[in-house]
Amino acid sequence: MKLAIAQLNPTIGDLSGNVQQIIERSIETAGQGAELMLTPELSLCGYPPRDLLLNPSFIEAMTAALQEIAAKVPSHLMVLVGFAEPNPQAPEVGSKPLYNSMACIKAGQVRQVIRKRLLPTYDVFDEDRYFASGEQPGILDCCGLKLGVTICEDLWNDEQFWGHRSYTVNPIAELVERQVDLIVNLSASPFVIGKQRVREAMLTHSAQRHGCPIVYVNQLGGNDDLIFDGRSVAVDIQGSIAGRAQAFKTDLLCIKFDSEKKTLRSSISHPLEGDHAEIWAALVLGVQDYARKCGFTQAVLGLSGGIDSALVGAIATAALGPENVLGVLMPSPYSSDHSIKDAQDLAVNLGFKTEVIPIADLMGAYDQSLSCIFSDTEPGIAEENIQARIRGAILMAIANKFGRLLISTGNKSELAVGYCTLYGDMSGGLAAISDVPKTRVYSLCRWLNSEAGQQAFNAQSSEIIPKNILTKPPSAELKPNQVDQDSLPPYDQLDDILARIVDQHQSQTQIVAAGHAAAIVQRVMQLVHRAEFKRRQAPPGLKITDRAFGTGWRMPIAAKH
Amino acid sequence: MKLAIAQLNPTIGDLSGNVQQIIERSIETAGQGAELMLTPELSLCGYPPRDLLLNPSFIEAMTAALQEIAAKVPSHLMVLVGFAEPNPQAPEVGSKPLYNSMACIKAGQVRQVIRKRLLPTYDVFDEDRYFASGEQPGILDCCGLKLGVTICEDLWNDEQFWGHRSYTVNPIAELVERQVDLIVNLSASPFVIGKQRVREAMLTHSAQRHGCPIVYVNQLGGNDDLIFDGRSVAVDIQGSIAGRAQAFKTDLLCIKFDSEKKTLRSSISHPLEGDHAEIWAALVLGVQDYARKCGFTQAVLGLSGGIDSALVGAIATAALGPENVLGVLMPSPYSSDHSIKDAQDLAVNLGFKTEVIPIADLMGAYDQSLSCIFSDTEPGIAEENIQARIRGAILMAIANKFGRLLISTGNKSELAVGYCTLYGDMSGGLAAISDVPKTRVYSLCRWLNSEAGQQAFNAQSSEIIPKNILTKPPSAELKPNQVDQDSLPPYDQLDDILARIVDQHQSQTQIVAAGHAAAIVQRVMQLVHRAEFKRRQAPPGLKITDRAFGTGWRMPIAAKH
Repeated sequence: MKLAIAQLNPTIGDLSGNVQQIIERSIETAGQGAELMLTPELSLCGYPPRDLLLNPSFIEAMTAALQEIAAKVPSHLMVLVGFAEPNPQAPEVGSKPLYNSMACIKAGQVRQVIRKRLLPTYDVFDEDRYFASGEQPGILDCCGLKLGVTICEDLWNDEQFWGHRSYTVNPIAELVERQVDLIVNLSASPFVIGKQRVREAMLTHSAQRHGCPIVYVNQLGGNDDLIFDGRSVAVDIQGSIAGRAQAFKTDLLCIKFDSEKKTLRSSISHPLEGDHAEIWAALVLGVQDYARKCGFTQAVLGLSGGIDSALVGAIATAALGPENVLGVLMPSPYSSDHSIKDAQDLAVNLGFKTEVIPIADLMGAYDQSLSCIFSDTEPGIAEENIQARIRGAILMAIANKFGRLLISTGNKSELAVGYCTLYGDMSGGLAAISDVPKTRVYSLCRWLNSEAGQQAFNAQSSEIIPKNILTKPPSAELKPNQVDQDSLPPYDQLDDILARIVDQHQSQTQIVAAGHAAAIVQRVMQLVHRAEFKRRQAPPGLKITDRAFGTGWRMPIAAKH
Repeated sequence: MKLAIAQLNPTIGDLSGNVQQIIERSIETAGQGAELMLTPELSLCGYPPRDLLLNPSFIEAMTAALQEIAAKVPSHLMVLVGFAEPNPQAPEVGSKPLYNSMACIKAGQVRQVIRKRLLPTYDVFDEDRYFASGEQPGILDCCGLKLGVTICEDLWNDEQFWGHRSYTVNPIAELVERQVDLIVNLSASPFVIGKQRVREAMLTHSAQRHGCPIVYVNQLGGNDDLIFDGRSVAVDIQGSIAGRAQAFKTDLLCIKFDSEKKTLRSSISHPLEGDHAEIWAALVLGVQDYARKCGFTQAVLGLSGGIDSALVGAIATAALGPENVLGVLMPSPYSSDHSIKDAQDLAVNLGFKTEVIPIADLMGAYDQSLSCIFSDTEPGIAEENIQARIRGAILMAIANKFGRLLISTGNKSELAVGYCTLYGDMSGGLAAISDVPKTRVYSLCRWLNSEAGQQAFNAQSSEIIPKNILTKPPSAELKPNQVDQDSLPPYDQLDDILARIVDQHQSQTQIVAAGHAAAIVQRVMQLVHRAEFKRRQAPPGLKITDRAFGTGWRMPIAAKH
């Protein structure tokens, strides 16, 4: 049997656009002689649809859209399409009103529906909010073969692989007991650094353990904070990767399944890339899709001459093209001479235009306006924040005036400890690197200047990020001769402490035991807690770690701990 | 038997402070001769603790805190304390790592633990994210009586009352089958307009249906967006309210239970109030607790002379005292003469100080700074937003300089359609009325000027909100002679359409069928969708309706629908 993985990039809620994509891919698939086309989880509405699922008319429209697909895909092709299925028994039995399901379409009809069994409800996932669990193993007859159909999380409960269970049942084991020929898994699994290695190790383990080949289909594309990396794979019973679809690009991957030998074969298998290459590609796709799906073609960002805005400038350029990026330099009397030059050098390297709008006069005007109420006070944080807010207001004015997306440039380390100004440098529609710790910002920029980075960027020049930006000490330049390390521990220390607090849920005692000074750990913990009110108002930030601030970080503000 | 309801106001995560409250109340309870003291759901850590529950050290500290309570409460008193209980079987059986539990403490020991069975996962609730469901009916022996112990949601699945089931089991029915003498329910149920009537109707129904009296304990206090209104009640088998604790205040309510006659008696029963009185009390408590639990004593707000800031000024005054409120008037050349006078009149009525900081010079400075890049463009939204952002920056500067909480003044109608400026009038630590529709803002202000309102406010004057503020047409005053109705449908129409979209999940077809013009409905729906990026960055707003923007509103931004 020949089957095809349609690694689609749906827009959330855009049923007609998504239907169109599925139909086009199905025609292409049929043209290649395949008998089955697989699409990702909830491919009809895109993942995650979130509270759109609470609108009954949206659910009805999905059922109608399935009929349209059924009418228009080549009739001899079987297509699996993900959709939200009404659960009419809900009020009677007391379960949730929907299932996260997969419709099997063939010959103009929805022939069968298979329901997701394991519903993730952790981190960014809220599936118990909407869905009831399917109770039956999903078995499909396809060209005389017995296909085990699973949806995303259904695959993620192998107690041997994880060393523990996360759910009471293991749908894979139940399918294997029923002697399926092949397991397919239809996913929408968001990118996290190194996650593909985990996915493939898990797939390999399951395929080998059960002696059953697995075809894994992943969604592609950026949806707000989440970036879906694709990299759908076919894994045979030896545990080897028979085929791998592209990373961070839509794809249509054809695979031959020999049911006698239980082997999978594909003529194409894209290689895996290293951490920096995948982070880079993820962030570029995240910016690109956020802009496109929100209807923006152009972006603007503030250029401080520092490393964060340098990286974001490079990402925006790769995502939208240099002709669509505008960098705005807003020097103050505290800006160092080199920061203007560094920012200009960066813009030249990247090929985008800049504007210079000095803020001294505006600072003076605020001083003047506030002179009465601020008399008898010493300049401090309030005045530093004013500078950042002037810049935020200028950038937003440009964004509003010209319909550009403002991309904010703050990194994860500063968002964690609140070393950023709400309504100032935090302003923007999207935070491109707010899940990238400062030490990783540096290493990404160094990588970008390497041969691999230049290739990924498609750069001619031998330098993307100007050397001086990489080597000078980081500074917010909000007062004379300020450097970040006046207020914060060195970033390598800080980032290690933050990873322990944020990602690993460690206690003060544990972090001190790992070798950090107690006073520093305590201070960082306090800073993290106190910055919660800022993070609550941050723009969506592209997630690249296991624990990003944003939809998967749900902390109280008015709290004491 | 004599029992006491301790209607506590915990601070989220503040174990030592919450332990202290429980111990103090237990001593008071014992002094009144009661044998059992009931506290709200998760009374040890406060509800909702959210992702603090993911920190293992936090869970360990809770277990230790229980021991401290056990050691310090009067030994002959039985005390029920809510806590998060580790679920050691989780990795083996594949369930969540915690239970939402109630510890029964007596004579220096935790004698029994009872687990919550029904876990709400809708609106603002995320309990499936953290907790496994308890599987056994919670039965406790107390002074020879058989007590049925339930936790919050356990009570909310009476299929007769609701006309449908929300969960497969009904813990109340299971307890009644086991012939308990009395059911207690330990809750943390957030305020929504009119919810107490629903709660009491439900309690009455259940008590009558099962012939079993119910004692319902609710948490008190504001925790970020959620306001817990208390109003714990004792309901006897005739369905009458034998006692009701205070609304929006901590309380200790003693109740006598006659196990022979199955009657409940209390010497005190506070009356229910009308919608406006309860909304007012809720918002005042919400502001008060947010400020206190974040460590603020003083607040600042912008006073436009309009009705929204008038209402928020009154709420802030009632919450924090007039001496702790500062109103800032920031007139522009587009401000009408009356707006300054109206704002000053309001401040006089409320007794708080004002500052006047005109913004014309700052507007000029921005015009100047942006003149080059904005040349050849017409003034429009960008310039209007600059005005709002100047005001936001001035308010934040004052907040930063003097350690005041900035309370933002936008209402729900404008937040819904995006008739507000991100980083401008949306700035603040807390949005006091962002869940109050504009028409309700008016009716609340009229109520405040009534005898009942003046009493609630404890006002001497016969006018709290100046008449002119109530009667003039609403305007953002961001350009000459602007009124809201230039851009929006009349507010009574708009609010009805919004309630249908936001609260009732209605489709365009349904709303048109209800009598609204199709073009207007379509436009409002578009506005609501397009404002999603603003709402994502809004400060927490006090929830008073079934569906508030905020933690219970989870919509995609980069979407099409």
